[in-house]
Amino acid sequence: MGRSGGGASLITLTTDFGTRDPFVGIMKGVIATRAPAVRVVDVTHDVPPQDVLAGALVLRHAAPFFPRGTVHVGVVDPGVGSTRRALCVETDTALFVGPDNGILSLASPPDDVRRIVELTEERFFLSPRSNTFHGRDVFAPVAAALATGTQPDELGPTVAAMERLTLPEPNIRGGSVHGQVIYVDHFGNLVTNVPAAMAPEKGVVRCGDRRVVTASTYAAVQPGEAVAVVDSWGLVEIAVRNGSAASVLGAGVGSAVVLERS
Amino acid sequence: MGRSGGGASLITLTTDFGTRDPFVGIMKGVIATRAPAVRVVDVTHDVPPQDVLAGALVLRHAAPFFPRGTVHVGVVDPGVGSTRRALCVETDTALFVGPDNGILSLASPPDDVRRIVELTEERFFLSPRSNTFHGRDVFAPVAAALATGTQPDELGPTVAAMERLTLPEPNIRGGSVHGQVIYVDHFGNLVTNVPAAMAPEKGVVRCGDRRVVTASTYAAVQPGEAVAVVDSWGLVEIAVRNGSAASVLGAGVGSAVVLERS
Amino acid sequence: MGRSGGGASLITLTTDFGTRDPFVGIMKGVIATRAPAVRVVDVTHDVPPQDVLAGALVLRHAAPFFPRGTVHVGVVDPGVGSTRRALCVETDTALFVGPDNGILSLASPPDDVRRIVELTEERFFLSPRSNTFHGRDVFAPVAAALATGTQPDELGPTVAAMERLTLPEPNIRGGSVHGQVIYVDHFGNLVTNVPAAMAPEKGVVRCGDRRVVTASTYAAVQPGEAVAVVDSWGLVEIAVRNGSAASVLGAGVGSAVVLERS
Repeated sequence: MGRSGGGASLITLTTDFGTRDPFVGIMKGVIATRAPAVRVVDVTHDVPPQDVLAGALVLRHAAPFFPRGTVHVGVVDPGVGSTRRALCVETDTALFVGPDNGILSLASPPDDVRRIVELTEERFFLSPRSNTFHGRDVFAPVAAALATGTQPDELGPTVAAMERLTLPEPNIRGGSVHGQVIYVDHFGNLVTNVPAAMAPEKGVVRCGDRRVVTASTYAAVQPGEAVAVVDSWGLVEIAVRNGSAASVLGAGVGSAVVLERS
Repeated sequence: MGRSGGGASLITLTTDFGTRDPFVGIMKGVIATRAPAVRVVDVTHDVPPQDVLAGALVLRHAAPFFPRGTVHVGVVDPGVGSTRRALCVETDTALFVGPDNGILSLASPPDDVRRIVELTEERFFLSPRSNTFHGRDVFAPVAAALATGTQPDELGPTVAAMERLTLPEPNIRGGSVHGQVIYVDHFGNLVTNVPAAMAPEKGVVRCGDRRVVTASTYAAVQPGEAVAVVDSWGLVEIAVRNGSAASVLGAGVGSAVVLERS
Repeated sequence: MGRSGGGASLITLTTDFGTRDPFVGIMKGVIATRAPAVRVVDVTHDVPPQDVLAGALVLRHAAPFFPRGTVHVGVVDPGVGSTRRALCVETDTALFVGPDNGILSLASPPDDVRRIVELTEERFFLSPRSNTFHGRDVFAPVAAALATGTQPDELGPTVAAMERLTLPEPNIRGGSVHGQVIYVDHFGNLVTNVPAAMAPEKGVVRCGDRRVVTASTYAAVQPGEAVAVVDSWGLVEIAVRNGSAASVLGAGVGSAVVLERS
């Protein structure tokens, strides 16, 4: 991607470490020590523990809104300390650092990838290196190096491929679009895998035994009523106005959703 | 308010977005892209979902402690995408950006307001603009513009008024002050609407069927005992030492509180 | 410790204030007002309410990863407003600011301490000063002063000693190491007081009536199985792969742990 000459770099953090423990603060301490001028932005640390797919989805939707050249660290890493590889992925617009378990894959689709490097050059790591916290010992110092001008190819050998996660694809049967819930946000909104382009202009959405009207805004229905909208990720989302669709509809990740023309 | 010439600006964020999802990180990405030198400080993202009054109260008590000229973004926005207006409010000391639903009103009392501008100039927004996430598409980029020198009057037409929320006022009946709980904090402390000036020098506070002694510090009573103090907002607050007054007294927002001279 | 001439300083915050209320944001507003160029890093604000020992442990394990000269603020302060003293502790590598209740003591062992100063010089405080929020009124402004060049001895008189907390020590009986759980993290991992050096090369760990195998990584066992590893703090830790050891083993802070040679 080529680090632009001027300007301070940015590192983002996406983890399942939570914010109760000092783990995230410690990563920031390592970065502040090695790259004092670099800013750190939290994407989230509340990815559900060990939920690599949720982390990958978060990173995919957040990364495009950051400046060109941002270093994105993604650490949901149940295999820490085992033989799973550690990677730096260079795309046309950003650098991604994390374990090779798919966490980086949705944010770096194959067509955008310029290079995948395995992190083997231990001189960039903290020493000694623990077997339980590579966020601190590997990924934070590598991100600090990248944000201060180290080139990806200095970090280790280029490798041919990385672990890739796939999201379930919606499909069309009998004139209806069959999808599913892939993410539930803090409000209890149910994000589906159905892109706006596949949604009928006027239609209803079935989720379990509920029929949900479609509209363009949450406020189009009465408080407590369910509504399907196109959300900020360009996906069909089911919400309950001033409430939680997850609770009211008893739905979650994996729940089937059917869009019908009305 | 007039942006002071030198010095980096500051943007604060107060939302009900939570920290589980990438929403807040995305807002920071938008700001970092458009205003790379500007710092962002989180006030809180855990305003109870859709609780505009709680958000307004948080903003009112936080804003005075930030530097002159800080841009405060407040987004508790159940009406997002509907016809509710988006505003920039300029006061003697700060700039406030958010929806016109009252979220900005307690922090910008009428006497302090210099100008209220409706945000209509779409060239400052992200494009395309979603109907569900104006924090990303409208408020973050407008805050970035303000923090980098854009004047409020460039953002749209000046308007005469804004939605205003009011807090319940305490009143005096039969020599006692009758107030209520308006906020419950993380510790379970019960913040009332009774300012220190209305509290009797020596008195007791009744909350439900409990009589609570008054003192100047939490530590004036034994662990597990309730105490009424003047808190850091200048309001009478009921606490339980090393415990939660909300749980112990079974009280919450709206609970009646009576202050009697002893 | 001597403030190094160049470079921006850093302040870290460790509190039990939570992130729901504006308290932490307000502290950052005070720091931004008084020390605009200084960066603030959150270690955590979710120390269990009033749990001074947990806060002290967090600070001890986080501080070493920050740059030399960092100002660490620790506020778990149930005695706020009472006669407990407020301190600045200068060590060989850092400055610590907080109440004199032990919160600073594990991060500043006696051999590292150069000076302990009682914070009495009110000109560094906010005025008026509340009795409930010295994070805002005392510790944030004092940290801002230290981070901008104020020397500790300007803040008040040097004092001889500070409150010190002690962690329970493991001991050896009948060839086994008897320790206990001292910290439970966000994942439900059980951190013990047994340092790696005391753990047998090959052994089993008993926690309640469970026998837990030892290994070098979480991934050495099957998902759902318990494993004892050396963690990133150099301590023996019991984890359940892709699960919560605290839940699965029904253990928490204080639970007895026995390490036996196998």
